[in-house]
Amino acid sequence: MIIVLKKNATEKQVQHIVDTVRGWKLKVHVSRGTERTILGLIGDERVILGQPLDIFPGVESVLHVLKPYKLASAEGRTERTRIRLPPLRKGGRPVVLGGPEVVVMAGPCSIESRELLFALARLVKKAGGKILRAGAFKPRTSPYAFQGLGAEGLRYLAEVRAEVGIHVITEVMDPRDVDLVADVADVLQIGARNMQNFNLLKAVGQLRKPVMIKRGLANTLEELLLSAEYVLSEGNHDVLLCERGIRTFETMTRNTLDLAAVPLLQRESHLPVIVDPSHGTGHWDLVVPMARAAVAAGADGIMVEIHPRPAEALSDGSQALLPKNFIKMMTALNAVARVLGRKV
Amino acid sequence: MIIVLKKNATEKQVQHIVDTVRGWKLKVHVSRGTERTILGLIGDERVILGQPLDIFPGVESVLHVLKPYKLASAEGRTERTRIRLPPLRKGGRPVVLGGPEVVVMAGPCSIESRELLFALARLVKKAGGKILRAGAFKPRTSPYAFQGLGAEGLRYLAEVRAEVGIHVITEVMDPRDVDLVADVADVLQIGARNMQNFNLLKAVGQLRKPVMIKRGLANTLEELLLSAEYVLSEGNHDVLLCERGIRTFETMTRNTLDLAAVPLLQRESHLPVIVDPSHGTGHWDLVVPMARAAVAAGADGIMVEIHPRPAEALSDGSQALLPKNFIKMMTALNAVARVLGRKV
Amino acid sequence: MIIVLKKNATEKQVQHIVDTVRGWKLKVHVSRGTERTILGLIGDERVILGQPLDIFPGVESVLHVLKPYKLASAEGRTERTRIRLPPLRKGGRPVVLGGPEVVVMAGPCSIESRELLFALARLVKKAGGKILRAGAFKPRTSPYAFQGLGAEGLRYLAEVRAEVGIHVITEVMDPRDVDLVADVADVLQIGARNMQNFNLLKAVGQLRKPVMIKRGLANTLEELLLSAEYVLSEGNHDVLLCERGIRTFETMTRNTLDLAAVPLLQRESHLPVIVDPSHGTGHWDLVVPMARAAVAAGADGIMVEIHPRPAEALSDGSQALLPKNFIKMMTALNAVARVLGRKV
Amino acid sequence: MIIVLKKNATEKQVQHIVDTVRGWKLKVHVSRGTERTILGLIGDERVILGQPLDIFPGVESVLHVLKPYKLASAEGRTERTRIRLPPLRKGGRPVVLGGPEVVVMAGPCSIESRELLFALARLVKKAGGKILRAGAFKPRTSPYAFQGLGAEGLRYLAEVRAEVGIHVITEVMDPRDVDLVADVADVLQIGARNMQNFNLLKAVGQLRKPVMIKRGLANTLEELLLSAEYVLSEGNHDVLLCERGIRTFETMTRNTLDLAAVPLLQRESHLPVIVDPSHGTGHWDLVVPMARAAVAAGADGIMVEIHPRPAEALSDGSQALLPKNFIKMMTALNAVARVLGRKV
Repeated sequence: MIIVLKKNATEKQVQHIVDTVRGWKLKVHVSRGTERTILGLIGDERVILGQPLDIFPGVESVLHVLKPYKLASAEGRTERTRIRLPPLRKGGRPVVLGGPEVVVMAGPCSIESRELLFALARLVKKAGGKILRAGAFKPRTSPYAFQGLGAEGLRYLAEVRAEVGIHVITEVMDPRDVDLVADVADVLQIGARNMQNFNLLKAVGQLRKPVMIKRGLANTLEELLLSAEYVLSEGNHDVLLCERGIRTFETMTRNTLDLAAVPLLQRESHLPVIVDPSHGTGHWDLVVPMARAAVAAGADGIMVEIHPRPAEALSDGSQALLPKNFIKMMTALNAVARVLGRKV
Repeated sequence: MIIVLKKNATEKQVQHIVDTVRGWKLKVHVSRGTERTILGLIGDERVILGQPLDIFPGVESVLHVLKPYKLASAEGRTERTRIRLPPLRKGGRPVVLGGPEVVVMAGPCSIESRELLFALARLVKKAGGKILRAGAFKPRTSPYAFQGLGAEGLRYLAEVRAEVGIHVITEVMDPRDVDLVADVADVLQIGARNMQNFNLLKAVGQLRKPVMIKRGLANTLEELLLSAEYVLSEGNHDVLLCERGIRTFETMTRNTLDLAAVPLLQRESHLPVIVDPSHGTGHWDLVVPMARAAVAAGADGIMVEIHPRPAEALSDGSQALLPKNFIKMMTALNAVARVLGRKV
Repeated sequence: MIIVLKKNATEKQVQHIVDTVRGWKLKVHVSRGTERTILGLIGDERVILGQPLDIFPGVESVLHVLKPYKLASAEGRTERTRIRLPPLRKGGRPVVLGGPEVVVMAGPCSIESRELLFALARLVKKAGGKILRAGAFKPRTSPYAFQGLGAEGLRYLAEVRAEVGIHVITEVMDPRDVDLVADVADVLQIGARNMQNFNLLKAVGQLRKPVMIKRGLANTLEELLLSAEYVLSEGNHDVLLCERGIRTFETMTRNTLDLAAVPLLQRESHLPVIVDPSHGTGHWDLVVPMARAAVAAGADGIMVEIHPRPAEALSDGSQALLPKNFIKMMTALNAVARVLGRKV
Repeated sequence: MIIVLKKNATEKQVQHIVDTVRGWKLKVHVSRGTERTILGLIGDERVILGQPLDIFPGVESVLHVLKPYKLASAEGRTERTRIRLPPLRKGGRPVVLGGPEVVVMAGPCSIESRELLFALARLVKKAGGKILRAGAFKPRTSPYAFQGLGAEGLRYLAEVRAEVGIHVITEVMDPRDVDLVADVADVLQIGARNMQNFNLLKAVGQLRKPVMIKRGLANTLEELLLSAEYVLSEGNHDVLLCERGIRTFETMTRNTLDLAAVPLLQRESHLPVIVDPSHGTGHWDLVVPMARAAVAAGADGIMVEIHPRPAEALSDGSQALLPKNFIKMMTALNAVARVLGRKV
């Protein structure tokens, strides 16, 4: 941490800061320049997170040097995290996230019925998708919108997982539901609106099951990594990061998909990075080009929504791919992945 | 709701939409123009919220006519909501939010100790503040930052409320804590990061205690009103809206305080509107001018953070007012309020 | 400037940077910490603006210490800038911007006709407004929208200035028009879309007439001050800064009026700060509360649009005040100004 | 255009609007619903652009049905625009933008010296780049930063074009420089900060040379298309659109590259779409993944900055690719392009 002093900071003010910092067991270097005096704090500045050094008398600004996340950071790590979902059947293959394979997660936005869920699970599996996505608990902006089937949906999910033999990811919105969801899901999803629901992050941090955290609509990548840090610091090491678009002034798309997040998160962190072009764009006809772009940018996985009759979907029909378009997309993604020496 | 058709929409497509809409028990008016055919849906369009009409074949765009919120809307209401906190002592005065008085809520960001809380409660009360704010449960971006005193903090809050005789507002972050917090607080605060924590909104909607919802960092005013609708639709009519700044590209302030939200929310809704210039700016020296501006814009209340030694505050010290500046501010706010025929 | 090195930076890399920096005639302090080595550059870092130190081998990040603007900065100045528009008539009063008076600029968005301009000029003057605003050259998003009367409008403006006796401000959009506009205007306005039209800034910097720079829709306050620096560094010292709203995700208002800019710019700079609540909100019914708020925040002036028949205005009618509302607003602004020891 | 009336709009108000609209030679359909009366305007609503119908008494909101751009729109067009740059030498090949080939434009940010320009031009050509980019006039945020070599730079550009035999694109910032730049450049670039410099757009609209318009930092895609409309409506049909990142709250990247703009602009318009990942990210190590992603999203061209010694570049060195990385990128882009049936 570096403290830049005001031009007219007094010697007494400087000494007060130096004494305070030493009281925190940190060392201080004082550099006196022609226009400014600068204090460099030596030591782990995370111990003084939240100390408002900027309002000490004489201080102009405070600059952080160390990254505020530690466990999520790529620094000092030689290997990237690979998350392994054990095979569902004897002799089956595990799904590995963060490895050479680009993993496709697909399915309906919401679980609407048992039949539809089974049909889509079979479709996803057949087309090469590795994980079924489907929401039982749905966070909806309006209290009058369909809120999901809840526990009934989870039961269908457990059935489809067992019968079709496909791993599942589903969202958990409430700390009270964590155990219920963890009983069924191979990966628990923390939705964008809950990225900073810190009690929920702590609750899933207690699990020993993979957790995928979606970036919040107004959250920086640093904040996403700090939310991952919540889960990691509770002892759960299997965290996936998901870029799903941020909120900007542009109105032609539902969100602005920030694909530069993919190489950036991979540089800053060792955790696998997934991209959701369905929420990232909000329009089915933009999903396929953005999915291709995400794979080209180096994403470790893709999450998309599909529906056989989007016009009848109970949520987010506008962004759902038709099965035939999903199948075509899989071929294209595989071709792009091969350019990077990977495969879908 | 209005459906604009594509230039080349076929008669069959038009008929399919008309039939579907009639199936939802809504009426349709068809207007055929020179460049476009337009369908007007007559009836309560909220019944078809979530139906993705934009992807029906032949549809170019869908325009919503009715506001998606109903209970929060000012439309059809003749009176604004006034929220009354009963007097704490026999013969005392109630606090009324949404009436002619501009209510000031003030206190420390976090409850740090019993002593500090008592000192600040007395200060707030003496200076004319009506509600003590103080956080027991703290949502913090980093898992390594001070997380609040939790239940212990709530106990101090109950004590100070009883002994000093001042109403209190405090944040609830978790549906599991709602009853605990409701036992102490006169007003429960839903923080910005939880504005779309829908299960939490439903939980406080079950209470019969006032709830203040802070606008999320990336949330529109329409979404804020929809979050209020969650609480209202559960039967809790005492909802306060709070503008506390949104996230923009500007970095000199912590957030961008959107004061136009005050007259806008008052036009769109009947609920009282509070402004928090502490989080809205993040810098103590901007808090007083922005508090004055908020009152001048017509705010029904102001929430600010104070601390006797901001440099030692365990959270958000940079934005805390010194007691002496808080006292001066109260005088200025009262003077501005009088220009609008109100008082602090 | 401070250079933070990577954890694994080599001694050779450190030496290369130190040598390079010394080659620029700057001194370097090297601080070796437990986790990071940090280099502090001593001297005027503005000489190396644009040097991409962040990509030198071994560098993790570069932190700027000095403000990039110098002439616009409040630092080292004991007095705020006051801009004086000489009286138009013998024995008349000058208009002083940046002094105790809050100056109101008002008028139609566009000059539509000679008659309307005269009528509004008289109205503004009578109600206590000091400067007539009216656009001859209009920047319009669509090529099909009314583009302003151009030179003809400027002639009307010269006439109204002479006959009614009111100072005028009008926009200049093109370096080729600077002299033409400067012949008429008391203050030249640089519009939001031209805030970073650097050739235009240089051109008005050559004048010895006041220039008001409006903040761009996506520009930080630092960038606004750097645009002021362009004008100041050409020798024109009379620069006004204008906050007129920035672009955010909120759609209920045309822009988000960032009133915290007022105290912030006044702290960072010595230049007067004006607020335009008409463009800042886009809706006439929000203009008056936001004008009051701007004065309460400490603005040195207010710019608003008025029109006797907004529904017939050729541009921006939605945000124009009716004359009667303008007159009422003047009374309210004066009352708020008095709270701050100022007047309108 | 559709006009939604307030619940309590009177018959007289409805009649006033209907009469006014008919006075504009447009037809009106009146739909009376249970909650709202709605007026549908039939005819070309562009004739009443700028008429503030939203403030007519009784009006609640106004919804636009037709796109505000006409010449830039894909509607009613059967073919996409292809822009052909004639061969520079007899028997040479033209460069075609908007066809099956993905065109790479590359070169230094600024023209720094004749030698460097020649070296990079040869490099770009050899590696398969078709157009040399290099700035003579540079828009810089600070007046103290390098402002470009101006006319001298243009001379070098003319020489390199003739001697090396490569087409060139360069920015024009000032209407007074349009002819000078058009004498040299094969494509004139309108920079992001000038996207709404409407006089400059009109000036390049008078040319019969291709113009590439970069999206402004805070501009919607609709506004970008309206800026294209300015050029098209002056008679210049050869317009390229360029996505180069927008400004958001994220600070880890210089801008947020909005790749969904590629398929969206291609759906809405017939004009070719170029992507600039250098400005779009601001960091050289993100440029290659984002360039791959842009091609995968379907971009018609890519513009990147290169420099042999980025640490010594006079502008934007942080985002410049080393020659060796540029050459590697070309191979990758070609491979991705082939997946889409195109080539670089």
